Amino acid sequence: MKPSIDLRSDTVTQPSTAMRQFMAQAEVGDAVIDIDPTTERLERLTAEMLGKEAAIFMPSGSMTNQIAIRLHCQPGDEFICEENCHVYNYEQAAFAQLSGVVAKTLPGIQGVLSADQFEGTIRPINDHLVRTRLVCLENTHNRGSGKVQPFDTVQQITSWAHENGLTTHLDGARLFNAAVATGISVDKWSAMFDSVSVCFSKGLGAPVGSALAGPAEFIQKAKRARKLFGGGMRQSGIIAAGALFALQNNVERLAEDHEKATKLADAIREIDGLSLDVDPIDTNIVIFSIAPELGTAAQWQQSLAQRGVAVLATAPQKIRLVTHLDVSTSQVEAAIEVIKETSPAMA
Amino acid sequence: MKPSIDLRSDTVTQPSTAMRQFMAQAEVGDAVIDIDPTTERLERLTAEMLGKEAAIFMPSGSMTNQIAIRLHCQPGDEFICEENCHVYNYEQAAFAQLSGVVAKTLPGIQGVLSADQFEGTIRPINDHLVRTRLVCLENTHNRGSGKVQPFDTVQQITSWAHENGLTTHLDGARLFNAAVATGISVDKWSAMFDSVSVCFSKGLGAPVGSALAGPAEFIQKAKRARKLFGGGMRQSGIIAAGALFALQNNVERLAEDHEKATKLADAIREIDGLSLDVDPIDTNIVIFSIAPELGTAAQWQQSLAQRGVAVLATAPQKIRLVTHLDVSTSQVEAAIEVIKETSPAMA
Amino acid sequence: MKPSIDLRSDTVTQPSTAMRQFMAQAEVGDAVIDIDPTTERLERLTAEMLGKEAAIFMPSGSMTNQIAIRLHCQPGDEFICEENCHVYNYEQAAFAQLSGVVAKTLPGIQGVLSADQFEGTIRPINDHLVRTRLVCLENTHNRGSGKVQPFDTVQQITSWAHENGLTTHLDGARLFNAAVATGISVDKWSAMFDSVSVCFSKGLGAPVGSALAGPAEFIQKAKRARKLFGGGMRQSGIIAAGALFALQNNVERLAEDHEKATKLADAIREIDGLSLDVDPIDTNIVIFSIAPELGTAAQWQQSLAQRGVAVLATAPQKIRLVTHLDVSTSQVEAAIEVIKETSPAMA
Amino acid sequence: MKPSIDLRSDTVTQPSTAMRQFMAQAEVGDAVIDIDPTTERLERLTAEMLGKEAAIFMPSGSMTNQIAIRLHCQPGDEFICEENCHVYNYEQAAFAQLSGVVAKTLPGIQGVLSADQFEGTIRPINDHLVRTRLVCLENTHNRGSGKVQPFDTVQQITSWAHENGLTTHLDGARLFNAAVATGISVDKWSAMFDSVSVCFSKGLGAPVGSALAGPAEFIQKAKRARKLFGGGMRQSGIIAAGALFALQNNVERLAEDHEKATKLADAIREIDGLSLDVDPIDTNIVIFSIAPELGTAAQWQQSLAQRGVAVLATAPQKIRLVTHLDVSTSQVEAAIEVIKETSPAMA
Repeated sequence: MKPSIDLRSDTVTQPSTAMRQFMAQAEVGDAVIDIDPTTERLERLTAEMLGKEAAIFMPSGSMTNQIAIRLHCQPGDEFICEENCHVYNYEQAAFAQLSGVVAKTLPGIQGVLSADQFEGTIRPINDHLVRTRLVCLENTHNRGSGKVQPFDTVQQITSWAHENGLTTHLDGARLFNAAVATGISVDKWSAMFDSVSVCFSKGLGAPVGSALAGPAEFIQKAKRARKLFGGGMRQSGIIAAGALFALQNNVERLAEDHEKATKLADAIREIDGLSLDVDPIDTNIVIFSIAPELGTAAQWQQSLAQRGVAVLATAPQKIRLVTHLDVSTSQVEAAIEVIKETSPAMA
Repeated sequence: MKPSIDLRSDTVTQPSTAMRQFMAQAEVGDAVIDIDPTTERLERLTAEMLGKEAAIFMPSGSMTNQIAIRLHCQPGDEFICEENCHVYNYEQAAFAQLSGVVAKTLPGIQGVLSADQFEGTIRPINDHLVRTRLVCLENTHNRGSGKVQPFDTVQQITSWAHENGLTTHLDGARLFNAAVATGISVDKWSAMFDSVSVCFSKGLGAPVGSALAGPAEFIQKAKRARKLFGGGMRQSGIIAAGALFALQNNVERLAEDHEKATKLADAIREIDGLSLDVDPIDTNIVIFSIAPELGTAAQWQQSLAQRGVAVLATAPQKIRLVTHLDVSTSQVEAAIEVIKETSPAMA
Repeated sequence: MKPSIDLRSDTVTQPSTAMRQFMAQAEVGDAVIDIDPTTERLERLTAEMLGKEAAIFMPSGSMTNQIAIRLHCQPGDEFICEENCHVYNYEQAAFAQLSGVVAKTLPGIQGVLSADQFEGTIRPINDHLVRTRLVCLENTHNRGSGKVQPFDTVQQITSWAHENGLTTHLDGARLFNAAVATGISVDKWSAMFDSVSVCFSKGLGAPVGSALAGPAEFIQKAKRARKLFGGGMRQSGIIAAGALFALQNNVERLAEDHEKATKLADAIREIDGLSLDVDPIDTNIVIFSIAPELGTAAQWQQSLAQRGVAVLATAPQKIRLVTHLDVSTSQVEAAIEVIKETSPAMA
Repeated sequence: MKPSIDLRSDTVTQPSTAMRQFMAQAEVGDAVIDIDPTTERLERLTAEMLGKEAAIFMPSGSMTNQIAIRLHCQPGDEFICEENCHVYNYEQAAFAQLSGVVAKTLPGIQGVLSADQFEGTIRPINDHLVRTRLVCLENTHNRGSGKVQPFDTVQQITSWAHENGLTTHLDGARLFNAAVATGISVDKWSAMFDSVSVCFSKGLGAPVGSALAGPAEFIQKAKRARKLFGGGMRQSGIIAAGALFALQNNVERLAEDHEKATKLADAIREIDGLSLDVDPIDTNIVIFSIAPELGTAAQWQQSLAQRGVAVLATAPQKIRLVTHLDVSTSQVEAAIEVIKETSPAMA
């Protein structure tokens, strides 16, 4: 039986009927040869919302992030990031494989770095050393259980970076979650970074795609790099329409996902042998650890799946739950019951 | 005024109403996390048609080709190709930029190489030299005016390659045109190659996408490389549906594009000062040269555009015309009239 | 005035008259075209001393290390190393720039990692993730003040690596110092690693060169990679002779360098405001921190230089002193006096 | 028996007693940490002779050439070169493997390109295309049988390059041979190029090394790249002394090598079944083809070796002979006798 409640990721969302209708009617053109009008509308709206000169649509968040790093850095340059962040861990290190760039990782607390951790991290100019060029932050932080980066801390870190001649990139795959959770608009977050990537295929519910925003000249170079990576798509307006619909309709409703995730966290907190990685949680991701006597995360994943709840084991003793627009309140309640039942069953 | 007859490329085709409807109803899933059923159907059908174990859907033909080269070769390996082919010239040399691979080019006639040109091209094993690993052919050949590679020649070249321990890749962006033009089915062409890429967004009329087909293990590695390049798309079934519809509905009709292109060629042959690069033409691409006294290709491109016919200047004195499903017979006739008028006007 | 006592590094050593004589008489050949007999003798002796099948001579330790990493790993593979080690920090990240490999750093204490830090560091097989392939250790550890890696710990770490399918490389730039300091012969250290690099131009006093040792097939590949990196030298026997002389004459005397370094450390321990990074020290490197009220390392470096003692500021408040065969006992005593005088002068 | 007359390459030359003496007495320093005075003298003299601001010493000509290409180009840039040249064919394509750069080859006659072959080779600015950045020439041309590039042609090509915004690099591994053969001094040749590499370990007779010359800022960057490639050598003065001695003593005598090569060519011209690739030859390299009825080049190489003459088979039916300072006139005469005897023996 396929699990009926899918909490593995907010990437599993299905396009709604209205979104499908909108995509089917999208005006399209050949975006490689000249212009796809719907893609262009999406790019303009994204740039506007993020307060940047320009934006560019790409097939995935890995592509937007890794192209951003490629453009900020040259071979032999280094970027600084949190050790559990997505660009360092979950994108096959394309920065090194494809672009000859190296990462310096700093250990965060729930994905959050403090400004003072950056002191002394810029390497002197010396032929033995790589050149420090870029700071990358991730907001919200996936492995940090959807943690929102504290606004003041981000200001301190990015100011420090700019004062020291570094550029800054924000992996904002879930930036809209951060904005909704804090009430601080995405453009305020974006303003602190030279470039920002956002994903449409996570909580926003579009089927495919991500955008990279930044200065016009930077985005022009990103277009060239997109071609290099094989991300040039012809009548991309079909899928850009899904992203456009998502931006216009699905941002505010992220608050509901956060409420549902809090409900899940509230329940897990009360279960003996389970402990929340981050408590309280900020957005739509709940990560909890399982006491060894209750079995492994792999066993839990399997057991929950048999009871109709799909989750992800993200470490030997850790389970991740993500809420999204395809999980209703009653499904969350049902999932809670299943989790409660599972716990004694595993003991 | 936007030109109303677009002969720049067969990539400009718009999805039809029926195709849009099919896409809007596609069953989808998260192709990164597990499976998108429509994408899977497309991949299975593609593999079946090409007679290969497996196939994988990607956002572009550049990605399928460049990932194929990356998988056939390691850094410091060399592939042999025709000097005007697409993978060497029009994909930003991703093979070198991203994969550290080097190309050895041989001069073809209208994009066609003869088997004897390959004699002596395999480098001996020697620490000064790269290692020859792969032969890449392109069929039909874009810069060769849509020329179909002679079947026997392809057999000789690929046999030679395999006998000498090389692998073979076919850039089959327009392989369906070759099959329709020759009556030799795509699987017969495909059988001579270890891997084959095909495009759905050219004459087949789908909005986006390409597939790479080959042995199951090779395609498994291609999936990993697709993630690296940023080509992992979530609910890719929406656009895969367009490709699926194209495979099921738009293959046989390529014959009409070929007829229209022949009509164009027949007219151009008669115009003083214009000469066909390849005559007769094989498929849907017409390239002609302009006598210097009739102006430059750039001037022609502009002049034709003002008269409602969009074409591409592909060299200082060369114009390319491509027929496709969005160019009707009456539009071809209208375009011929415009070209006839243009010629004396430029003199 | 050029400082007369040079404690900046053991790389500054000058070839002795006897060594120069030996080099001048070296039998040579063209090592690229076939064989240079003196280089071959050096390579055979090195392999023998390290208990490996083969060894290869290269112009620098950066080349031997970075080629080792390139051979152990493919693009998109990861190696694990201590965060202050040389291969990650002081070789311009050639592993990423030239080979597309990524580093995972673990924080050591004085450059020493414990075996339990490695638990959980091997990434699962997953298309989002790089593949963990290699563990690199450095012995003695330069930034760890010449610290010898504890033999038992190295055994635990390398056993863990091999049990888990990883390979191991030892950056043994100063492995002979470790052997002399512990009385454990270099082949016993070497036996725990798949490949080992050693430097002849540090404490051993040769002008130029390093060797990489390992299985014969691995060294064959290293020869090819050396050509790629531009390290193929013709009559390399001239400088290989220096290295050969060093191996035959200058190993045991490293004990004297260790004694001199201890003498320096003993003096620094007693000076108010200076504190040893590692105490007691193991070999020939002394790193001490300067209390801020005594000025910066840059000021100390300058001030000591004016008094005839050359040292290196390796951090804003850290000074490194290295003993070697061109620093006599009386020079060490003189240097101590200068350091003692400097301290109050800076206050 | 080891062949006593070695005509395989001018790289096999042994340092003379005087050169060995000079090397043994060289003043040295640590060239990585600050300065090696002999290396600096060599670099200054090289820059001066080539009329460039600066020069840098490296272990091999592959390193100087490939670093030059890396500095002139960025990943995704293209250089134009003759199809049989050394940098494209005999340096393991480090430009692609290590630097992501792509080569466009033009077919020369005996390694010589004409200026009109360059027309139309600069790619337009377009996201599908690499960017044309650099022209590389080789003088004398190794595979062109030591052919000197015609001075006027080089002027035309390099002027065209500079007028079109390209940079130029000269692989001058045997530039001194060209200068001696033409009476046109090396600085006149060098003046036409942005950067020039020269080799000391070929006809000049030094054991090891090459230099890259160019603008001071370019050479500063080359120093950084040399570290990256692992070419940073400590007391490099020992071998730099050999190069310095060679520059000061062995340039003019190259004329003798040319005379000897002409003597060889004169003899070969008269032998039935052998034909000179280039006739007359310009410098010290003689390449001849063997009629199939006289056996293969591999057979000739073996047969000549048995008679005490070492040569290189460079193609299935081609043999290369190179004269140098370790081949006396009487040895050349003896070699001629051996070749004459071999010919009927093979029939």
